[in-house]
Amino acid sequence: MKHHVAIVGATGAVGLELLRVLEERSFPVKSLRLLTSERSAGKQLAFHGETITVEALHPDSFAGVDIAFFSAGGSRSREFAPYAVRAGAVVIDNSSAFRMDPEVPLVIPEINPEAIAQHKGILANPNCSTIIMLMALEPLRRLTSIRRIVVATYQAASGAGAQAMQELLDATRAYLQGEPFEPKALPHPYAFNLFSHNSAVGEDGYNEEERKMILETRKIWNAPEIAVSPTCVRVPVLRAHSESIVAELETRPSLEAIYAAYRAFDGVELVDDRERNHFPMPIEATGRDPVLVGRIRYDAGISNGVALFACGDQLRKGAALNAVQIAERL
Amino acid sequence: MKHHVAIVGATGAVGLELLRVLEERSFPVKSLRLLTSERSAGKQLAFHGETITVEALHPDSFAGVDIAFFSAGGSRSREFAPYAVRAGAVVIDNSSAFRMDPEVPLVIPEINPEAIAQHKGILANPNCSTIIMLMALEPLRRLTSIRRIVVATYQAASGAGAQAMQELLDATRAYLQGEPFEPKALPHPYAFNLFSHNSAVGEDGYNEEERKMILETRKIWNAPEIAVSPTCVRVPVLRAHSESIVAELETRPSLEAIYAAYRAFDGVELVDDRERNHFPMPIEATGRDPVLVGRIRYDAGISNGVALFACGDQLRKGAALNAVQIAERL
Repeated sequence: MKHHVAIVGATGAVGLELLRVLEERSFPVKSLRLLTSERSAGKQLAFHGETITVEALHPDSFAGVDIAFFSAGGSRSREFAPYAVRAGAVVIDNSSAFRMDPEVPLVIPEINPEAIAQHKGILANPNCSTIIMLMALEPLRRLTSIRRIVVATYQAASGAGAQAMQELLDATRAYLQGEPFEPKALPHPYAFNLFSHNSAVGEDGYNEEERKMILETRKIWNAPEIAVSPTCVRVPVLRAHSESIVAELETRPSLEAIYAAYRAFDGVELVDDRERNHFPMPIEATGRDPVLVGRIRYDAGISNGVALFACGDQLRKGAALNAVQIAERL
Repeated sequence: MKHHVAIVGATGAVGLELLRVLEERSFPVKSLRLLTSERSAGKQLAFHGETITVEALHPDSFAGVDIAFFSAGGSRSREFAPYAVRAGAVVIDNSSAFRMDPEVPLVIPEINPEAIAQHKGILANPNCSTIIMLMALEPLRRLTSIRRIVVATYQAASGAGAQAMQELLDATRAYLQGEPFEPKALPHPYAFNLFSHNSAVGEDGYNEEERKMILETRKIWNAPEIAVSPTCVRVPVLRAHSESIVAELETRPSLEAIYAAYRAFDGVELVDDRERNHFPMPIEATGRDPVLVGRIRYDAGISNGVALFACGDQLRKGAALNAVQIAERL
């Protein structure tokens, strides 16, 4: 059975990665419609050797579409996803528009595939930092309950879009040439610098990215009482997020059991060579599917704690790959 | 009263910063001897407009010296500091050689100045990550006890020396030009990448940098039971370290009291503008004395927790400035 597929936001960083992932995984595509804003309409993109012309997104763009991937920001999802659903498509939305909607399953297929069946036309792809964190913790969670997570992120430019990736390169080139550079895509200078995540900060001092990590974890794990203490930071890295994670556990599994759980779990790759000081690095996670996990150790501070470090490609498992995996399980 | 001063390791990143800090603070220098390995001997450095020729370090280099700053690595400190002490100098050592020696005070002048008087010829400057963390926490610690710290670092190249800073620039330039680059100063590619701190990892899974943060905190605070859960990571930034810190407290001070404590504390500067999304950044901490602190908030995960983000110049408060401040208090 092949599908009529649409990608909304096809020319964005995640949209282009969706095309690549659909190709690589030989997703059964019967037809492919690439949709963007008026501004990008007319561009041409390749898919399995064929050239597809990008069309401007309209309410009637979804006639005959079975599966619509949305990756063009929350407001576009809120406006156009209902048209897609009415046209009979299942929407897999990469924006934050529907993630906390109780009617919309929020899915990481390796973690809560059972939620997929409950969809009413829309499924939400979690935030990239949430996906990478929960993938890195899933083997541990299968051994014991997790009571609290303290996480600090090292987030790549790609999370802010293709323009931010280009800005990182341009700003760095200007710095090295001693030339001035005015940031546009991001609020702060990016060359050899880092800064708190560029999302709005609420009354409680948490920014939106951190709030997503807290609320989405509770929804995906169906664990409303889980304590999550996140700090989200943008670092001068192109497209893989890293996370330093300390998990407080109900019990203390043996290190052997923990390593065995990580080795057995699909979607995670152990990179944990203490002798060679080789642990997960963004450049080694880039362009790859698994979330790399290493530096696994008992926490030095508390008895039932485990610390680890993870890297995942923000555009793949953090976005496009997870969305396609949801579509595969539909 | 003016002093006869020596700097061991004068041509290194910290040594050069020591020169600058002594100048800027008009430290009362009567004579200045600059000592290095044979390899660098003969180089000339400027101090207050005078040119000083660097000499090779020998056991008899310390005749007539009152204060000797050591910043040439642990093995050189272990070998030559005793000669300096025997010659009558007070040694302020920036290496890790003597930090955990119970006979040697480990001092951050704003935090435990009372320890200075106990010296027997050698005083130790703490590790840069420890200094920045404890400076960022001191206002909080004056309000209530701290029971546990979870910290993730974002450490600059400078911590691995001047060669690592140059390697970051060279590797990045090569990357942008599409040229190959072989890392030498650091074990991993540094351009648009990050990696676990390049110090040896022990049986318990913690690396030496992390172990320093745990043990030095206990010594400086005289708090042998304090729980510290560190993860140390090298990021592509030139010379200011950043740290994401969650502190678990004995009580829960009001946010007003916390902000007032930070405003009142010398050596820390509040950078905490939620509306403009302006928080501590390494480029704004670079070349400056205070540790920048922001993102102060009650922890989202536990009731008696406070989270914050700090940046400090690794070569100044993280090393040279703290050493000169110790000398000033002697």
